[in-house]
Amino acid sequence: MANDQVLTKEAILDAAEQVLRRYGPDKTSVVDIAKALQVSHGTLYRHFPSKTALREAVTERWLQQSVAEPLSAIIEKQHSDADEALHMWLKTLIEIKRSASLNDPEMFAMYAAVTLDATAIIAEHIDSLTGQIEVLLERGKVSGAFRYDQPADRLARAVFSATAKFHHPAHAAEWTGESADEEFGSLWKLLLSGLASSK
Amino acid sequence: MANDQVLTKEAILDAAEQVLRRYGPDKTSVVDIAKALQVSHGTLYRHFPSKTALREAVTERWLQQSVAEPLSAIIEKQHSDADEALHMWLKTLIEIKRSASLNDPEMFAMYAAVTLDATAIIAEHIDSLTGQIEVLLERGKVSGAFRYDQPADRLARAVFSATAKFHHPAHAAEWTGESADEEFGSLWKLLLSGLASSK
Repeated sequence: MANDQVLTKEAILDAAEQVLRRYGPDKTSVVDIAKALQVSHGTLYRHFPSKTALREAVTERWLQQSVAEPLSAIIEKQHSDADEALHMWLKTLIEIKRSASLNDPEMFAMYAAVTLDATAIIAEHIDSLTGQIEVLLERGKVSGAFRYDQPADRLARAVFSATAKFHHPAHAAEWTGESADEEFGSLWKLLLSGLASSK
Repeated sequence: MANDQVLTKEAILDAAEQVLRRYGPDKTSVVDIAKALQVSHGTLYRHFPSKTALREAVTERWLQQSVAEPLSAIIEKQHSDADEALHMWLKTLIEIKRSASLNDPEMFAMYAAVTLDATAIIAEHIDSLTGQIEVLLERGKVSGAFRYDQPADRLARAVFSATAKFHHPAHAAEWTGESADEEFGSLWKLLLSGLASSK
């Protein structure tokens, strides 16, 4: 049984995630989460000043653990060419989002709602992901797989934006169509041609 | 004063558009539109069987007149190179959507809602726009501005998808940021490099 002394941020987020998956993001209240932790509502508010703060913290942790970290593992594999690594990176991002929308719908709905509010945590998450793309672009420039004149950080944002239809939560309803993989395949060929040429 | 004999589809859509702009898409009822036309509610239902059908018809006309037709005019100007024409076409599409979201918010909100419902009219509209891109891609292949191996219809969809962040209504909140034009500029350079190369 938890009490205020041992109530860590991680324990709160674990409980919040569990309760959220049970009731859904709209129906979950701070009181529900406090009950799951067997602490008072006031105790919980001392750690998170609002339901919004709690929702954002749960989403932030999910984005870090379920999106940014698995993608970062692809960057750390040095053995593949940068173009192959970027292809794998984008396919993995797309698959993580699609899988979450189908298999973890409550968390995905909360992430989609937090994204609509355009909070700082989403901006930071996007900075982190485009930073990963930038590493691959620079690696590919060194290896000769990519040739480009634009600053790598801007080009990384262009690659991320260009693929938004396949990973931004507003488009989730479009991900289950039969042609989604084929469409991404065409887009990837176009982007790869652009990255491999010199303009 | 309208009566059933002279009630044309265009007259209904004109009235519906006017009422919609006054009350907004959520608060507008079929009864409001019937009142504006000075016909009975039943008379209006004989022409449009539901509020949904009326909303879709107003949106369809708006997409045709305010989006597809001005873009088609760019295609018909034969004097520019295909790459310049495609750049102008995309910038015009982006500007039409941004302007509507700012200056015609009720119509834009209805279009955004109809888009979420993924109706057949949106699919037809996208077919029409990607058909226009296809014409430019084929023209550019003939002139040498573009080199590509993919079927032009698939590549046209890839170009449309790649720019979705700048014209799909789900992203409207992102269009007013200072960096939106610069971001599109980077993306366009990448796409142009891809279209001008041979993969």
